[in-house]
Parts: sequence; C-alpha cells; structure tokens
Amino acid sequence: MELIIYGGAVVTMKDDQLIRDGAIVIEDQKIVDVGKTSELLRRYPRGYERINAKGKVVIPGLVNTHQHAAMSLLRGYADDLPLQEWLEKWIWPIEGHMTAHDIYVGALLTAVESALGGTTTVNTMYHYTPDENEAKAFAEVGLRAVVGHVCFSWRKNEDKKALEDLARNWHGKADGLIRVSVDPHAPYTVDPEYMRELKTLCDELNEKYGSDGAPIIWHVHVAETSDEPEKIRRAFNINLRGGVVEYLDSLSVLDERVIAAHCVALTDEDIAVMKRRGVKASHNPISNLKLASGISPVPKMLEQGVTVSLGTDSPCSNNSADMFEVMKVAALLHKGVNKNPTLMSAVQVLRLATIEGAKALSWDSEIGSIEVGKRADLAIVSFAKPHLCPVHNEVSHLVYAAKATDVETVVVNGKIIVENGRLTTVNCEEVMEMAEKAKKSLLERLKRNVK
Amino acid sequence: MELIIYGGAVVTMKDDQLIRDGAIVIEDQKIVDVGKTSELLRRYPRGYERINAKGKVVIPGLVNTHQHAAMSLLRGYADDLPLQEWLEKWIWPIEGHMTAHDIYVGALLTAVESALGGTTTVNTMYHYTPDENEAKAFAEVGLRAVVGHVCFSWRKNEDKKALEDLARNWHGKADGLIRVSVDPHAPYTVDPEYMRELKTLCDELNEKYGSDGAPIIWHVHVAETSDEPEKIRRAFNINLRGGVVEYLDSLSVLDERVIAAHCVALTDEDIAVMKRRGVKASHNPISNLKLASGISPVPKMLEQGVTVSLGTDSPCSNNSADMFEVMKVAALLHKGVNKNPTLMSAVQVLRLATIEGAKALSWDSEIGSIEVGKRADLAIVSFAKPHLCPVHNEVSHLVYAAKATDVETVVVNGKIIVENGRLTTVNCEEVMEMAEKAKKSLLERLKRNVK
Repeated sequence: MELIIYGGAVVTMKDDQLIRDGAIVIEDQKIVDVGKTSELLRRYPRGYERINAKGKVVIPGLVNTHQHAAMSLLRGYADDLPLQEWLEKWIWPIEGHMTAHDIYVGALLTAVESALGGTTTVNTMYHYTPDENEAKAFAEVGLRAVVGHVCFSWRKNEDKKALEDLARNWHGKADGLIRVSVDPHAPYTVDPEYMRELKTLCDELNEKYGSDGAPIIWHVHVAETSDEPEKIRRAFNINLRGGVVEYLDSLSVLDERVIAAHCVALTDEDIAVMKRRGVKASHNPISNLKLASGISPVPKMLEQGVTVSLGTDSPCSNNSADMFEVMKVAALLHKGVNKNPTLMSAVQVLRLATIEGAKALSWDSEIGSIEVGKRADLAIVSFAKPHLCPVHNEVSHLVYAAKATDVETVVVNGKIIVENGRLTTVNCEEVMEMAEKAKKSLLERLKRNVK
Repeated sequence: MELIIYGGAVVTMKDDQLIRDGAIVIEDQKIVDVGKTSELLRRYPRGYERINAKGKVVIPGLVNTHQHAAMSLLRGYADDLPLQEWLEKWIWPIEGHMTAHDIYVGALLTAVESALGGTTTVNTMYHYTPDENEAKAFAEVGLRAVVGHVCFSWRKNEDKKALEDLARNWHGKADGLIRVSVDPHAPYTVDPEYMRELKTLCDELNEKYGSDGAPIIWHVHVAETSDEPEKIRRAFNINLRGGVVEYLDSLSVLDERVIAAHCVALTDEDIAVMKRRGVKASHNPISNLKLASGISPVPKMLEQGVTVSLGTDSPCSNNSADMFEVMKVAALLHKGVNKNPTLMSAVQVLRLATIEGAKALSWDSEIGSIEVGKRADLAIVSFAKPHLCPVHNEVSHLVYAAKATDVETVVVNGKIIVENGRLTTVNCEEVMEMAEKAKKSLLERLKRNVK
C-alpha cells in the first residue's frame, strides 16, 4: 500500500523526536519517509492514498509484552479473591474445559480489543493447539504477535511436539506478522533440567526456523510473587541462595532473547544479572496490583539499564487489554510508592510502551518507532475530545489523559486494519457474538463437567 | 419529562440489588418506579418516552467528590515535577493570570467531560467570581454540582463576601441542581481562628439559604501529605500533638457536613475522630499517586465505618475527570499495597462512586442510587464493546473493564443531557474551541506578565 499520513503531530519515539504538522510516507509494508507535511506533500505529490491527521497525534503502535490472549473468555469470571482460591477453585477448573476453538475465539477477541486500542504487537503465552489457535486469530485480525506455547514439567513430550509444530507452522508467517516463542511457565512449574532442555530446544528451533533478524524468543514468568523461592523449594527441593533470576542464571538459560514477565520480587543481584545477560522485563502493574502480587522495582531496573517494557497480562487479571491504562498506571504507581513525582515521566513511559517493548521482543530492528526503514505499525489518536483539551503537551496527554477509545486509525505492516474506529479485517460484532456463545458453552460444559 | 428506560441490567446500588432485564420509570425529575421490564411496561403502557437499554447497563450517575473544575485549562501544562517546583514555578504563576472567564470556561470543559463520562454530580473547590463562574458552567451543562469558594487566611474579607454572594446567588438554584459549600483551603493555609470563623459562617449561611434536606457543606483538604503538621507549625507556630484531623477537631469545626479531601496521612486517632464526628472522606488515588503524596488508608477507614467516597481531583493532577478510571485505580491500589486481593471489591468500589459519594455530599436523600423517590440521575453504559465481552458479571466490568467513553446516555434530574454519546445541553465542539482559545490567551498573558 502507498499511503501518506499528514498534518498530525508525529511522536516518532526515535530520540523522543516530535514533529508537529508532520507526515509519514508508507510504501508496501514500510515507512519510507518521515518529516514536515509541507516538505513531504511536495516530495510525493501524487499517487498515494492520503490520511489527513490534523488535530490528531500519530504514535508507533503500542507493544504489549505480556498477555494470555485466550483468557478474555474469562474476563470478570472471578475477581477479588485470594490468589490460591482464585486459581484452584475458579480459573484452573474452567481452563481445563477450554477447547482449541475457545482458545482461538478468546485470542480473536483480545486481538480485536488490542487493535482497536492502538496496540499493534502482542506477546502472548498460552497453550498451542493445532488448527485453531492464537496465532491464527492474530493473523486474521492482521495484528503483529509473538505467540508462545506454555510448558510445564508434567507434559514434556506434549510440549515439545507443540513447540515444534508452532515454530514450523507459524514462525515468520502471515507476511512476517507472526513470530513464535518458547514459554516455560515459571521456575516453580518447570524443573531445572526441563528449563535447560527448553533453552536448548529454543536454540534448535532458531537454527531451523529463526534468524538473527527474526529470532524465536524465550518468554517466562519470573518472580511474580515474593514466595517464589519457597514454591521452587516445595516443587523441586531446591533451596535458592539468592533471587530467582540468579537461580535461572545458574541454569545457563538467560540471554538477550529472554523476556521475563512481572519481575516483582527481585533482589539487587537479580537486577544485576538481568543487565549482564541482557534479559528483558515485562512490567504488568495492573495485574500485579489486582492479584496483590507486589510492586516491581521498575525505577531501579531502569536505573541499572535493564530493558523494561509494559504488558497488560491476561484479561482475567486486569481485566482489559488497554495499553493506555497500563501506561497511566505505570506512570502513577512508581511515583506514589516511591514518594517521588519525577519518576516515570510521560515520555519515559511512552518509550516503555513502544520502542522498549519492541526491544523486549527482539523486534526493534523492525518496529517500535516511526522511522525510515521500519515496518509501518502506527496508531492515529484523535485529540478532538474534551478530555484531551486543551493541548499543552501531546506526550503528557497520551500517557495521562488519552483512552484506548481515542484511537481512530491503526496501521500494521503498512495495512490499515482500523479505520475511523472500525476494524477492516474482521467483523467486530461477529467476534463478540462468537465470544459470548463460546463463554456460554464453556460454562455449560464446566457445570456438567464435560470436556 | 416522562421516561421509561427498559430492557437493561439495572445496577440500583440500593442494597446492591441488580435487576436483569430491568426498567426505570421517571416522571418529571424523579424516579417513580423500578422493577422488571415485563411488569413495568404493562403498568405504564403508553405516554412515556422510551429508551431501550437491551445489552446495556444502567447505573446511578457517578459522584465525583473532589474537583477543581476550572483547572482543566492547565491539563498537561506541567507534570512529573517535584511538588514545590510544580506549584511555585508552574501552577501558581499561571493561576494568577486566570480570569473569571477562564474559570467559567475551564469548569464548562470539566462539566462536559464529566457528563459524557457518566458523572452526574461534581464537588468542586475553586475561586468564586461574580458573573462568570463554575456554578454557571455546571448549570449550563445541566450537571449537578456542589460549588465552593476556596478560602485563605490572606484574603478573609474577600472570601466572606464571595461566600455570601455564592450562597445567595446559587444555593439550591438551577432546579436544585446547584448547591454551594464553604471551602477552607487546608489546615496550613487557614489559621485556626479563621477556620472557626468559616465554620460559623457556614452555619449562618445555612440558616439563611440552606435547609436540613439541602445543606451548605464544608469542603476542605485534609492530610494530603505527611508533612502537613510541619506546614501548620511553620505557618502558625502550632505544634500538633496528634494528627491533623484531631487538630481540626480541637477547633470544633468537624461534623457530618464536612467533607475532607485526600485523607492520606491519617493517624488511627484521626480515623476515630472522623467516625465520631461523621466527617466524610474523598479518596483521590490518581492524584495522590501522581503528586507522590502517599496512599490513603482507605481499607482502615472503611473498616472503622467512615464514609469514603471517590474523587478525581483537578485535571492538573490526574489529568482527566474520569470516574471509571478512579474506580479501577481505587480497586487495584489498596489490594496491591496491602498485599490482599480481597480488599476493595468491585461492588464496594462502585458503592464509593455512587451512594457513598452522595452521602459524602449530604445529598443521599436525593441521589446516589436508583430507587423510587430519588432524583433521576443515571447513566446508561453500552456493553456492546469487545473490552466488555463476554459478560460474566456486570459490576466487575463496570469497575475493571468499562471506560468513561462507554457511557451512551446520561440523565440528570430527569432530563437527558447526553444522548448517544452527544451532549444535548451545550455544544461540545464550541466548548473545546473556547478552552483552546482561553488557554492560548492565558499563556500569552503569562508570558507578557499581564493580568
């Protein structure tokens, strides 16, 4: 597609550059020019589809680095409960009845919600199932995604087959929109030997299906709660001498292709190890608060030079896929708990949700900022709203005042997938009907205890 | 107006009753019937305007118990700064240049934003100015408001005149939509003698203009930060022996018509005094986090039986007037910092934003719940959105997943003021233009240092 977006404020996230009355030229899947409107409309006088972004703000598509997309079917199913009761009495029993079709429909709903809210890339960890799965859902919506298969010690053979299938069928597919990952669930559900095996398997899959520019990454929950060392002790009779990241490092599984979700209960040495190995963090403030997991030491990680990105976590523990909300809560929370209003400035938080998110997924050579040569993944945010009026500072508004519903147009890989707030790729109403129907059938099967 | 809203899920907030496929009958300004759709459509077969709320959820209008509405003109003007620098170098200098017209326009913008987002009552503290002021703005939008005049020791005569004018001109006016309040700024800016005088003045104004059913209340910032005792010491050479609420109590100014905003740095005895005197709290979690003021002991206040309500605080320290956001952050924050996911359940938070808010403003005989005899103040929230799909639990969605922009219809005092997401009372685009123009002129005057 050949497209010029012009007349808007372009928040490039390349060196925090903001171009007022800026323009972006897109050819096929890529950004080929960025600059002032006056200049670019002269340089490209004809032949391009045009979008007038006057009064609007153009941002790189937001990158959500931790999701369990399929779980949208359980949004609001159980809240405000003690963690173990929530998991054991509510979430796990109903998840046990989810079919491949449910996983596909749930992911479709999350992909739709994400796209409409200006999120163009989602990193999702769930169960891979052949035929119908999360990858298919994201590809249909036209969203960029890293789709993983979550691994547990109790199903090694099944996992390994699923990972091989996932990588073969999906890595680099759908015009390069879909990449895959190897997802050990957590240090207390994956034994040390299997943890190492999964790292080796990731390397092997990279040899077969990945490349330096498009690697298969490793996505794992790390230190979500402070009792994780105790959980590891109980599960594997291992007494940690330091933090959980140090433990993982002792297994030689950490490198720059690892994204660690949550990173709440970290020691200083854990942070030093993350920096040393190039491990990336996904910060999920809403989920961490809702599940009362604790508060991640994000300012400390940033100070130490660790790459920190933002995630919503599942629609069960959030309960939405709204990255604007996550940005605002991330900006607020660390100021509040550290009693320092200068922490997590608006521009820093916007970096975490864009370029740092791209880095966290080892995808920053192609996405995360609006610059020449990158894929055209962007969102146009309408500022003609009372809650975004008047305009003193666009970046402040994006983080502290804008809503996902202010997103008007979304472009992924050069293709318009949301236009005037409506999806162009799938029928939103049909997806909602499918989700409501899948939910009803799921509750029915749960009640009758039929799989 | 005669109106039936039918077919929706009615979240009454009277004993937490939820009526699926419920209906509400409104005559003139009041709710005259609430029940099942089938029954009410039979009982009122003709002559009523009808709104089909199928697939929607009807809630009492949200009550925002702490605002400085005029400050929307400064939204995003200065963020992420140390508190004193923010106030002294940024906020106070520009506020010094705000005219009565600016105050009116700023309040108009906040009223518009509030109404569109399902907030039907706002408690706002700012400077009263004759002719153009906050009360006029709220009345024009058709919103319910308690409009105060903020008082400081350095301008006693001016304040007393303003309060008298405000009460005479506005208390009970605009069909009873507007009430007024006496607003000592804070214990460190209002000396003890003046604090007492303002209480006496409030009593006198109540004698002249108020009534038991419609009192003039007392709205004051209390214990926003932990250094407030030190600020009081510096200002008035008073050494507090206990907390700030105890200090106010020693001045005999506390009773059930007092609403204390923030209540962050409270002692246990402060909470006991609040309970004993019937003082109400306005909790402003977003503002408290953004300004790094600290975290209010809300669960403790609730446990002790103190009435707690929710507020956004000013558009400068939030930066929006969105009560859905405040509900979500209130539900999340206390779980997280207290490491207890059962605190602040969805229904409890919704109570704080509705019926408890009404109590906090001494207005619960007329608003705060959907029940027969109360004023018809309500919002219809569309649930036909991907982020509100599927529906397991309406109340969970209202707190954890809904957005202000999901509000479709708003009724205040029996009158539809928002229909299909558009205001019926004022022209939203014109208000935004006025605000942008006022902002430009304000910045120009600040630059040239012209008042």
